[in-house]
Amino acid sequence: MKEYNIAVVGATGAVGTEMLKILEEFDLPIKNLKVIASPRSAGKKINFKDKEYVIESVQKGTFEDIDIALFSIGSGNSKKFVPQAVYEGALVIDNSNAYRMDDEVPLVVPEINSEAAKEHSGIIANPNCSTIQMVIALNPLKKKFKINKVLVSTYQAVSGTGLKAIEELKEQSKAYLEGKDIKPKVYPHQIAFNAIPLIDKVNDNGYTEEELKLNRESKKIFDDPELKVTATAVRIPVVYGHSESVHVELDNKVDLEEIQYLLSSDENIKLIDKPEDDHYPTPIMSEKDDKILVGRVRKDLHNENALEMWVVGNNIRKGAALNAVQIAEYMIKSNLI
Amino acid sequence: MKEYNIAVVGATGAVGTEMLKILEEFDLPIKNLKVIASPRSAGKKINFKDKEYVIESVQKGTFEDIDIALFSIGSGNSKKFVPQAVYEGALVIDNSNAYRMDDEVPLVVPEINSEAAKEHSGIIANPNCSTIQMVIALNPLKKKFKINKVLVSTYQAVSGTGLKAIEELKEQSKAYLEGKDIKPKVYPHQIAFNAIPLIDKVNDNGYTEEELKLNRESKKIFDDPELKVTATAVRIPVVYGHSESVHVELDNKVDLEEIQYLLSSDENIKLIDKPEDDHYPTPIMSEKDDKILVGRVRKDLHNENALEMWVVGNNIRKGAALNAVQIAEYMIKSNLI
Repeated sequence: MKEYNIAVVGATGAVGTEMLKILEEFDLPIKNLKVIASPRSAGKKINFKDKEYVIESVQKGTFEDIDIALFSIGSGNSKKFVPQAVYEGALVIDNSNAYRMDDEVPLVVPEINSEAAKEHSGIIANPNCSTIQMVIALNPLKKKFKINKVLVSTYQAVSGTGLKAIEELKEQSKAYLEGKDIKPKVYPHQIAFNAIPLIDKVNDNGYTEEELKLNRESKKIFDDPELKVTATAVRIPVVYGHSESVHVELDNKVDLEEIQYLLSSDENIKLIDKPEDDHYPTPIMSEKDDKILVGRVRKDLHNENALEMWVVGNNIRKGAALNAVQIAEYMIKSNLI
Repeated sequence: MKEYNIAVVGATGAVGTEMLKILEEFDLPIKNLKVIASPRSAGKKINFKDKEYVIESVQKGTFEDIDIALFSIGSGNSKKFVPQAVYEGALVIDNSNAYRMDDEVPLVVPEINSEAAKEHSGIIANPNCSTIQMVIALNPLKKKFKINKVLVSTYQAVSGTGLKAIEELKEQSKAYLEGKDIKPKVYPHQIAFNAIPLIDKVNDNGYTEEELKLNRESKKIFDDPELKVTATAVRIPVVYGHSESVHVELDNKVDLEEIQYLLSSDENIKLIDKPEDDHYPTPIMSEKDDKILVGRVRKDLHNENALEMWVVGNNIRKGAALNAVQIAEYMIKSNLI
């Protein structure tokens, strides 16, 4: 059986750490593993499957013996290092926003559009965390109905920003409980016991990049330029797990039982929907569940073509690291590399 | 000048405590004050304007000398004690859900429909916290345009549940930071570093009472049975300040500059809307501001008749205690009592 040399680039970050964990859980045929991070971390050691690995920084030739490089180092750094990895012969699966909308770069959620991955030119992009969980929840509806419009308000965890943001939330929470002053560093405002209605840069139209990603990435993943998504993206004081309040307008009347059947029959979704017994998804549940959790499914009160649902996903695993490793797994198992 | 005997019923609760604070801030002509709570608290003392008051429990005749009784003891207890207060001659301003939809009970946000208060039969109802802030934000638009539909997703603070919920959030947050086990008591799930997409009882149609209140109370306050509001109500780990992601569909094309002008010209609203400079409302800002804070105002990406906005209000003050005292103030200043 063919074995592969795999590199994890950004191995000390929130997503990189999780990529290594998932590579340990998965049974991919790995010949050699390279763990790569910034020069600051180079020389430090990381354990993987009971073996010690020394963290390297990117040098000329780093990717020459690499088959698949899983990148999670942010857009700026991806733009700097991904071209080198491709040039040196690696297939890059990039978690950043840098290449997602490039025509020659497939944007892949394996459960939805794995076929698209075949058409790569050296780079396959991982969608944004909040997009992945939403499109997985929409997918069984999309397969059966025409979706006219989606309105989504997000409740996003700080781990999406990175390890420093997790530390900041914990430090600020401790300071708040002790009655001490709080000085925000990672976020422009206090995040502990607060909500920040702004994620990523603001565009001229008043929307943030995070909000626009939900629109443009969903269109590309579903290969449906007519799909319309309007979003409001909000950071809340949760460590892991993004939640989304999703309004979906179909082109036809909603049959609630059918919708519930479609959601519960989808193997990528866990429908948790008995609100009268306090059964509904919460972000903490997503820490131990790689499926997308859906609940509070109900018809719009006034529009017979629309429904509401509450969608929760682990932003670091299915929203990032797991999806990237699943793309790698698909490429290997389909003999596409 | 005429002076009034005022009772605060539920004086030890989250809202009752704030009612007393606001009565201290306001310059109402108070002759005598009665502070009323459950028999458990009776006999304890409370300070008001440098004078000590002994907490009483409700007895026969408690309200005989009372002109205005501000109630905040929950629906069940209101149903038990409000009729007695009315019978004994007090004008009741009730913060609970018990009487809000009764035809003979005005539901009043003084900035919007103070006139309605005149038609009372002994009870004036205070709307739900999440409704008050939303209708104040919608009001300048409603005066100028026809609103076809509102979709709202809420981000609600635990103080709306009461003092025990504030304690629970703080205790759970401390336990989480210390790596200790968390056993939920007030809420069915952990609230610290989590989000709970369910507030109040669930109805047969899958909506919670909290969500349905936003629909029916808005119709009544605006006296517009055609107004359509669909809501998703979510509790997040914030102490004070409810936030709302609001989608508004008008009957006409949105002129964003005009909308911003209408919002910024409304004296009950503070428009904080320079997201590029990190200026937008957060719940913590509402702790020191009684206005309704609005930001992130932008046109829907796909519907030229719709807009999005982010609305934040202090759920305990403007959302409850302050609105109730403002109703009392209106009744006094208009010589309606």
